[in-house]
Amino acid sequence: MRNQQIVLASRPAAEATLDNFSFVETELPALGDGQVLVRHHYLSLDPYMRMRMNDSKSYAAPQAIGAPMIGGTVGEVVESRHPGYKTGDKVVGMGGWQLFSIVDGAAGLLRKVDTTHVPLSAYLGAVGMPGVTAWYGLVKIIEPKAGETVFVSAASGAVGSAVGQLAKARGCRAVGIAGGADKCAYVVNELGFDACIDHKAHRDTKSLAAALAEAAPKGIDGNFENVGGMVLDAVMLNMNAFGRIALCGMISGYDGGPVPLAEPRLLLTQRLKAQGFIVSEHMQHWPEALKELGTLVATGKLKYRESIAQGLASAPEAFLGLLKGRNFGKQLVKLV
Amino acid sequence: MRNQQIVLASRPAAEATLDNFSFVETELPALGDGQVLVRHHYLSLDPYMRMRMNDSKSYAAPQAIGAPMIGGTVGEVVESRHPGYKTGDKVVGMGGWQLFSIVDGAAGLLRKVDTTHVPLSAYLGAVGMPGVTAWYGLVKIIEPKAGETVFVSAASGAVGSAVGQLAKARGCRAVGIAGGADKCAYVVNELGFDACIDHKAHRDTKSLAAALAEAAPKGIDGNFENVGGMVLDAVMLNMNAFGRIALCGMISGYDGGPVPLAEPRLLLTQRLKAQGFIVSEHMQHWPEALKELGTLVATGKLKYRESIAQGLASAPEAFLGLLKGRNFGKQLVKLV
Repeated sequence: MRNQQIVLASRPAAEATLDNFSFVETELPALGDGQVLVRHHYLSLDPYMRMRMNDSKSYAAPQAIGAPMIGGTVGEVVESRHPGYKTGDKVVGMGGWQLFSIVDGAAGLLRKVDTTHVPLSAYLGAVGMPGVTAWYGLVKIIEPKAGETVFVSAASGAVGSAVGQLAKARGCRAVGIAGGADKCAYVVNELGFDACIDHKAHRDTKSLAAALAEAAPKGIDGNFENVGGMVLDAVMLNMNAFGRIALCGMISGYDGGPVPLAEPRLLLTQRLKAQGFIVSEHMQHWPEALKELGTLVATGKLKYRESIAQGLASAPEAFLGLLKGRNFGKQLVKLV
Repeated sequence: MRNQQIVLASRPAAEATLDNFSFVETELPALGDGQVLVRHHYLSLDPYMRMRMNDSKSYAAPQAIGAPMIGGTVGEVVESRHPGYKTGDKVVGMGGWQLFSIVDGAAGLLRKVDTTHVPLSAYLGAVGMPGVTAWYGLVKIIEPKAGETVFVSAASGAVGSAVGQLAKARGCRAVGIAGGADKCAYVVNELGFDACIDHKAHRDTKSLAAALAEAAPKGIDGNFENVGGMVLDAVMLNMNAFGRIALCGMISGYDGGPVPLAEPRLLLTQRLKAQGFIVSEHMQHWPEALKELGTLVATGKLKYRESIAQGLASAPEAFLGLLKGRNFGKQLVKLV
């Protein structure tokens, strides 16, 4: 049986381009004892993948040149030589940018999921890694109290949309920032945020900081950071004393040199806590997070939106679009 | 009875100068019921005072123009109309830059101290606010484990010297940075740090980061930040995953505009925690801290050095020297 893959062809010099990816076809080997063959239905595209394309110091080894791009997948078991899995099982894994993956059933890399009340694709978004990322940063780092104001960048995205809705569920004021009037309207009217700022309407820190002061009149107590750069600078100017900043991503700096933080002394004068995290290092909290997220999605209380690209070959372009904010909600690639 | 004071005459435009201070004489009023008259023996000079001279957003209201400069003092009660204090009692307080202060005995602003085993002046340094500052940032924010490496800037100063010695007492490698070969020799040979870098020998972040990599070959797990700017940038490049940064001061930025942090994304990629604090907001930890610090000083296990200026009139110049690192250890002004 033939497999198709997108591999990393070269590392980006600055902005990633289509030339950094190659489409290849390979023959799938026969399954060994204990192995499981998974056909991927959806591939998840996420900002962290851009950082993996660089050969720089980070929390994970860089993506190897010539290997399939790493990535979360949902799919079904089409052949199994492991007693824990049978044909037809729906599974979440890290199958990468390819149609099929062969997984050692004993390695704990596949998680069987129930699609009775939660759609399969949601296990890559609101009830998957992005949802748990939102939950961990909000619940374990920001630790919001009712009445506080929580701010999140990339508010219409897979992580940001969950941060705001989870904050609202905890009695907080939720304020977001997103790119464009459409996304902002969605964030407020459908996701239920109290306010959303269109970053395209603000070209400098001062203007953005003033808009934030209006959207968060009592200041910001918790900031869930996905972007860095000017957005973080503007947020810092609005942080209340004893505020908490969960550092989840800094997409503004993934393409090139360092993006400085303008006023680190605010961390001191406002006695802030800023903490970076990567959700895969906190697996002990996933069951609790997935339980809350799954229940909220199944009962319609946690809303999300998906941008779905069709076919594996569309993945590179969809990914580059994600980095530029062209997606609207969780970016997926449909493979089946 | 006549009092003498140094008051804030004007706010610095950039670097503070002698013109920002005025020397004034006033008449002391008679004591009211419940009041205590304290004669100050020593005045403490500390970097935080520089920030109070600015009219900017910070953790404390700015110092008022025309009012005596704020500051910690040790002295003795010379007259008391409060039953809890009697003439001759040695007390620590926030008497400010003046010879005498009149304090409401019931307000909890004076702390009686025992000078049997600890010299009076030490209650402004190793067994006072600077010592507790070191203790809180190290013990409660950095939370060092034996075998880890702890770094502190301004290592020969009142706070830094205590940070390193407390870290050594907890089985850590202690690395400091100080200005000049004399201070570095003192930090290593007398205070017992494992290494000390002379910042005067390094003019850019790259050079300093390389020196740090040599002094902390296993990387830095805990950073106690007193300086900010280039020192913090260089430290960030050497922080280990899951490192902790206690933000105590950023003296490099007190004179002017913002001093940026070059690579905030290291907070994310190394999953660091950075937390600002001000020790007066954590009074519940003072008894535990003072107990450890007092015992260590009384038994000769916590060493410190003092720079003592003579007479109230010398305070402004001694303070400006402190901001330039001309002091060696705790800067005091002797008033009696």
